[in-house]
Amino acid sequence: MADGHARVADAGTVRARFRAGDERPTAGLAPGYAQANLVAVPADWAYEMLLFCQRNPKPCPVLDVTDAGSWSTTLAPGADLRTDLPRYRVWERGELVAEPGDARPYWRADLVTLLLGCSFTFEWALTRAGVPMRHTEQGRNVPMYTTDRVCRPAGRLRGPLVVSMRPVPPDRLSDAVRETSLMPAVHGSPVHLGDPGVLGIADLARPDFGDPVRAEPGDIPAFWACGVTPQAALRAAAPPFALTHAPGHMFVTDVPDDRYRVL
Amino acid sequence: MADGHARVADAGTVRARFRAGDERPTAGLAPGYAQANLVAVPADWAYEMLLFCQRNPKPCPVLDVTDAGSWSTTLAPGADLRTDLPRYRVWERGELVAEPGDARPYWRADLVTLLLGCSFTFEWALTRAGVPMRHTEQGRNVPMYTTDRVCRPAGRLRGPLVVSMRPVPPDRLSDAVRETSLMPAVHGSPVHLGDPGVLGIADLARPDFGDPVRAEPGDIPAFWACGVTPQAALRAAAPPFALTHAPGHMFVTDVPDDRYRVL
Repeated sequence: MADGHARVADAGTVRARFRAGDERPTAGLAPGYAQANLVAVPADWAYEMLLFCQRNPKPCPVLDVTDAGSWSTTLAPGADLRTDLPRYRVWERGELVAEPGDARPYWRADLVTLLLGCSFTFEWALTRAGVPMRHTEQGRNVPMYTTDRVCRPAGRLRGPLVVSMRPVPPDRLSDAVRETSLMPAVHGSPVHLGDPGVLGIADLARPDFGDPVRAEPGDIPAFWACGVTPQAALRAAAPPFALTHAPGHMFVTDVPDDRYRVL
Repeated sequence: MADGHARVADAGTVRARFRAGDERPTAGLAPGYAQANLVAVPADWAYEMLLFCQRNPKPCPVLDVTDAGSWSTTLAPGADLRTDLPRYRVWERGELVAEPGDARPYWRADLVTLLLGCSFTFEWALTRAGVPMRHTEQGRNVPMYTTDRVCRPAGRLRGPLVVSMRPVPPDRLSDAVRETSLMPAVHGSPVHLGDPGVLGIADLARPDFGDPVRAEPGDIPAFWACGVTPQAALRAAAPPFALTHAPGHMFVTDVPDDRYRVL
């Protein structure tokens, strides 16, 4: 992660590196460009997935939906959604069966791909506002946790809310809330601040996805709704097939992050 | 419109009056409660309608989607979507065939209803910010115009952008932009300020929907994306059947308008 070249690379350069085989997580890469969660399902599950996202807009803010079989998106016209993410997850009947760096062997002509807003997009705004990014400082993927909050179901899709967590110094907490509130398309304001037990999280040191992060003395844990939530729904609802990004290994778009700021 | 009783009525009282036969437009009614556009399509058109909304979020911000056949919504748990709007429109193959005050004779078991954010919701915020509402002052429905801007299509659905227009004094224009920017779920910031010709609007005195409104000297026309846009798509794409609200005759929800403010 502490790669000086990567920090100044633009989005297309970062995607080309992933296409060539690099599988690193994307937090801190391609500064100023929005990143996105990916979830692709067979066409006969697309309505329920889109509805699930509409009914749960904090974890699942939809940025783009492809036509069936297409691997192109308006978020990055030159990109190939089958190859340009660092790492994918392949799901069969709710089970994770592979984590390839190239999704082409698994691609299907009936796949509808949804790209959802990602909290990595607001990390630049937080950094500009003076909020430290502990996981980036420590060279780690952001920690993510499955909560005991239940998403509103949509047809066959149901599952728990997943959150990402960032430890925030108390004197920067207002800035963190304000800055992310202004970006509702990338999860918006935190869903919870403080005691992890309120969300049913037993131990911050043991995230369900990503890496544990070390808090500084006095830091307050801030929890944002996370785009891994659809993966928890795939596990719970077990459609025959699905393809997603691997947590923390996002699609880097050509869209400037400020585009998702309302003011 | 200049009805003192209506101005203080709560959302449920207003809906009950519509259920009993009142057919007035809803601008200025039930202060503090969000209002919504309604578009209901047969289930085999629901995915394309939801996708059309996702791809055109400024005119079509989705607040709720019902299960097929249901006339209930989380936006107002006690309401009946078939009777509680003042006036409906019934569409057959792209043609407007009826404008009833009660939709029950037209209801179908396969109808999926989408409720979309409405600019009447941000009018309270604008009023609090000192922005005069000319159409309300003049006891008129807001004027709406079909533009020459084309929405991003979704499957069989396509059509032009429709906008609402409010004349704003120049010294209140910044307030109007800021206040509505903070409410992206009810159309957000204006799509255009000033010359109507830029949007292909020939004559402000002849709106395509609603009533003409008289501007005060110096007022600048401000145009917001409008939830009548799906009706223009129904006309262009001609599905066999659809049900909508009549322009300006909205669904009054139980949701406080501030719920749709991000900050």
